[in-house]
Amino acid sequence: MADKSEKMKARLPRGLVDRGADDIRAVEKMMATIRSVYELYGFEPVDQPLIEYTDALGKFLPDQDRPNEGVFSFQDDDDQWLSLRYDLTAPMARFVAENFERLPKPYRSYRSGWVFRNEKPGPGRFRQFMQFDADTVGTPGVAADAEMAMMMADVMEALGIKRGDYVIRINNRKVLDGVLEAIGLGGDENAGRRLQVLRAIDKLDKLGVEGVRLLLGAGRKDESGDFTKGAGLGAGEIDVVLEFLAPDSAAIIPSAMVQPRENPALANMKGGILWRQPATLVHNEINLSENARFQEGVSELDQIRLLVESAGYGSDRIKIDPSVVRGLEYYTGPVYEAELLAEIPNEDGQIVRFGSVGGGGRYDGLVSRFRGEPVPATGFSIGVSRLMTALKNLGKLDTSDVIAPVVVLTMDKDTESLGRYQKMVAALRAAGIRSEMYLGGAGMKAQLKYADRRGSPVAIIQGGDERAKGEVQIKDLIEGARMSAEIADNAEWRAARPAQVTVAESDLVGEVKKILAAQAEERARGK
Amino acid sequence: MADKSEKMKARLPRGLVDRGADDIRAVEKMMATIRSVYELYGFEPVDQPLIEYTDALGKFLPDQDRPNEGVFSFQDDDDQWLSLRYDLTAPMARFVAENFERLPKPYRSYRSGWVFRNEKPGPGRFRQFMQFDADTVGTPGVAADAEMAMMMADVMEALGIKRGDYVIRINNRKVLDGVLEAIGLGGDENAGRRLQVLRAIDKLDKLGVEGVRLLLGAGRKDESGDFTKGAGLGAGEIDVVLEFLAPDSAAIIPSAMVQPRENPALANMKGGILWRQPATLVHNEINLSENARFQEGVSELDQIRLLVESAGYGSDRIKIDPSVVRGLEYYTGPVYEAELLAEIPNEDGQIVRFGSVGGGGRYDGLVSRFRGEPVPATGFSIGVSRLMTALKNLGKLDTSDVIAPVVVLTMDKDTESLGRYQKMVAALRAAGIRSEMYLGGAGMKAQLKYADRRGSPVAIIQGGDERAKGEVQIKDLIEGARMSAEIADNAEWRAARPAQVTVAESDLVGEVKKILAAQAEERARGK
Repeated sequence: MADKSEKMKARLPRGLVDRGADDIRAVEKMMATIRSVYELYGFEPVDQPLIEYTDALGKFLPDQDRPNEGVFSFQDDDDQWLSLRYDLTAPMARFVAENFERLPKPYRSYRSGWVFRNEKPGPGRFRQFMQFDADTVGTPGVAADAEMAMMMADVMEALGIKRGDYVIRINNRKVLDGVLEAIGLGGDENAGRRLQVLRAIDKLDKLGVEGVRLLLGAGRKDESGDFTKGAGLGAGEIDVVLEFLAPDSAAIIPSAMVQPRENPALANMKGGILWRQPATLVHNEINLSENARFQEGVSELDQIRLLVESAGYGSDRIKIDPSVVRGLEYYTGPVYEAELLAEIPNEDGQIVRFGSVGGGGRYDGLVSRFRGEPVPATGFSIGVSRLMTALKNLGKLDTSDVIAPVVVLTMDKDTESLGRYQKMVAALRAAGIRSEMYLGGAGMKAQLKYADRRGSPVAIIQGGDERAKGEVQIKDLIEGARMSAEIADNAEWRAARPAQVTVAESDLVGEVKKILAAQAEERARGK
Repeated sequence: MADKSEKMKARLPRGLVDRGADDIRAVEKMMATIRSVYELYGFEPVDQPLIEYTDALGKFLPDQDRPNEGVFSFQDDDDQWLSLRYDLTAPMARFVAENFERLPKPYRSYRSGWVFRNEKPGPGRFRQFMQFDADTVGTPGVAADAEMAMMMADVMEALGIKRGDYVIRINNRKVLDGVLEAIGLGGDENAGRRLQVLRAIDKLDKLGVEGVRLLLGAGRKDESGDFTKGAGLGAGEIDVVLEFLAPDSAAIIPSAMVQPRENPALANMKGGILWRQPATLVHNEINLSENARFQEGVSELDQIRLLVESAGYGSDRIKIDPSVVRGLEYYTGPVYEAELLAEIPNEDGQIVRFGSVGGGGRYDGLVSRFRGEPVPATGFSIGVSRLMTALKNLGKLDTSDVIAPVVVLTMDKDTESLGRYQKMVAALRAAGIRSEMYLGGAGMKAQLKYADRRGSPVAIIQGGDERAKGEVQIKDLIEGARMSAEIADNAEWRAARPAQVTVAESDLVGEVKKILAAQAEERARGK
């Protein structure tokens, strides 16, 4: 036995958490639904291990410029560096590159699993969390991106989120790249600053326009006093970027895209895609119509619009939004994001828009790194815990259909008696009734308390007296709890089923079944 | 785009593997079945993160005496050592110790997940693999161990493994500890040597009696020339240990346990537990009847026997076997193992007994380390990949009910046409038919080849001619493949459904449904 003075402290490293039964069951249920949508779309499961060579993962973490920061790394016997994956996309890219010849192309696959970030944890920010991804590799056509957006929308509705309570927002990195080129931030030499601008814009939701303005300029000091260096843009350039983003004042999409086109495929549409009003960027007289990159981005967005409209997805489900950038460096074209519009209580009990539950984009360089030839790809990732939390708050992940076990009390502890109780449990289980023999050493009162803590529906009792008569006592714990609550409340008598019956041992299974059925009926009636 | 000369090599660190669709689906199916048995027994899901403080995991790896060898470890920002878990038991012990007050006791829980061993990989030996565990914490009674054995037996049958094709073997560490005490290996000072003896015995299956004899003595050189130091027992002591283990000659269980007792609870039993013939250990006149530890172990085994017999489990399902030791250091009492007796082709195509697919035992010290008070516990672990491989070889994990997607070919690549194809796919999906639009850039022949590689049941084709007439062509790819195979085989005509039909666009979904139904019927008929 351990010496009390030497005992070790049981604790978890920060940013890591244990998961309980409710969360595990809710996640299982949610993931089964997501999986069924991915399968319906023709995607196949495939997964990669949690450890990869560090260099194979690359340096694509958001908010992370320094190599090997942000990931958990360790050296192998042969001194090569290994890392825990920080997302599911980089390992998938390695897998596709490694098995390129034998895979059907385009290659449509999905996977879920734990990913790790070696970062400072915070509220709702963990160092281990689960993602559920889908990707299409091997096609440059934006039809693949359009499909991702539609699949995300279908996932939301399959999970019970009402139309209007979510939206899939789409943008194209090329559009923003065009704007940045136009203000002199083009070329490889400005790649770092462009990334800083992207990450600043990505914080629009969190920091608002003025916060982003600081990050685009000299920098910003947060509440804790930490200073984040800015992208160093001049005031005029910042105005251009903000005009481009501001949802009500600025607008950049050409007029041809404002109204839905005449298209027979749109006959049954519920609504057009929401396009912003046409305008020009007023600051510095930026002329975007001559910027090839910008035009390419706008044209791709227009194609996506037509494809999703053709398939019957209106702007109430999928819409273009120039403020969507996604933080990851590796995106090269369309980017998309699933946002929950429903207002849900947050950790502090305030009612807030829940915000992003997943997103992704086109990452044409990620597989190419290994292949030395262009391998275009697009895909998205759902943040499993975050979405699960939202669904639970929306009441969409009810796991109350899981019934706790019937407990057979052990009134006598000699092996012969335990054998008899064990036989009862075996009979209940053989009838498909979730049940267990109480395995501890406590007396009857503590055993009933145990059954109560487990939320057990029924307890079985056989002491010496009952045994002599070949009988068992069956307690309906749900009815019992209600009766005592009512008696405590108003001492009023009501017609109820008995909270306890004594039956012949041979009737045990049948009687327990009857009680469980009565309880199920009451639950269904919402009592 | 990546420069071909600079491209990175896509490769996995050794001992790690990617998983394909078949394996993932088979594991999902198998785990759902296992989970349903654990739930039936009243166990609750709970899981722990993959990273723990290194000291919280302890040094309990099999085949591993040196600290921190065998695990992947890395330092946190605050210089504390973290490790990837090497099993699910040590983190569970930390969890229970940390949450002891709020958990119902005995605490019955289950969990599955990846574990990691930083070892030399070999055939069927990986550095990341999956386990599926169940544990009961907080009861010293062997009724909990008996339940574990019964649950493992039920898992085997729920997975479709026939009675007689598996057996759950039980032993008790105390029995063997008694034997070792009797030959002078008792006391803390001999803990290391006892562990060496246990690990030598654990290799009985693999190395045979003579291999174990070497490991009990001076040591053994394997085929590769590597030398493993032995436990250093003398010839007489080795004889005692081997006599104790040998399945036909030696026998140690007292005669009281040979025959099933007179017990009314056994009336419906199919068979008694297989007990070995009573005898005494002849070498050195070892008298085990005076060894308290030995007697305690035997008495616990006898209780387990009575409990499983009472619940109707005969020796064809659960039997006592003194050669079961399990390699892990932390076991303190009963140990148990699930063995597949079915003969299955191995990696080299030889027909062999598959062997152990899981096991466990009582580990009364593991939670106590954190609590400074006795917290008895018992549990077992199923090796998921290994069991899945066995079930696949036995034909028990058929995933052929997953139908590949219908592919809508993209004959024209302009956005308007893609919109039309997209609309067809949307209609098929809305009807619950797994389907996709071909997203690549290839021509018709390559697209049909893609559908073939995916194993698609149906391809949809609409070129300019069909569009003008408002029609679509539907190809039955299963029937088409069979017809061409038959024509190639014997050029014989047979009455078959047409491999291709042309229908009005509005009949698309109905016609596809009809073809899929016909294919399903043929599969059911086993054609």
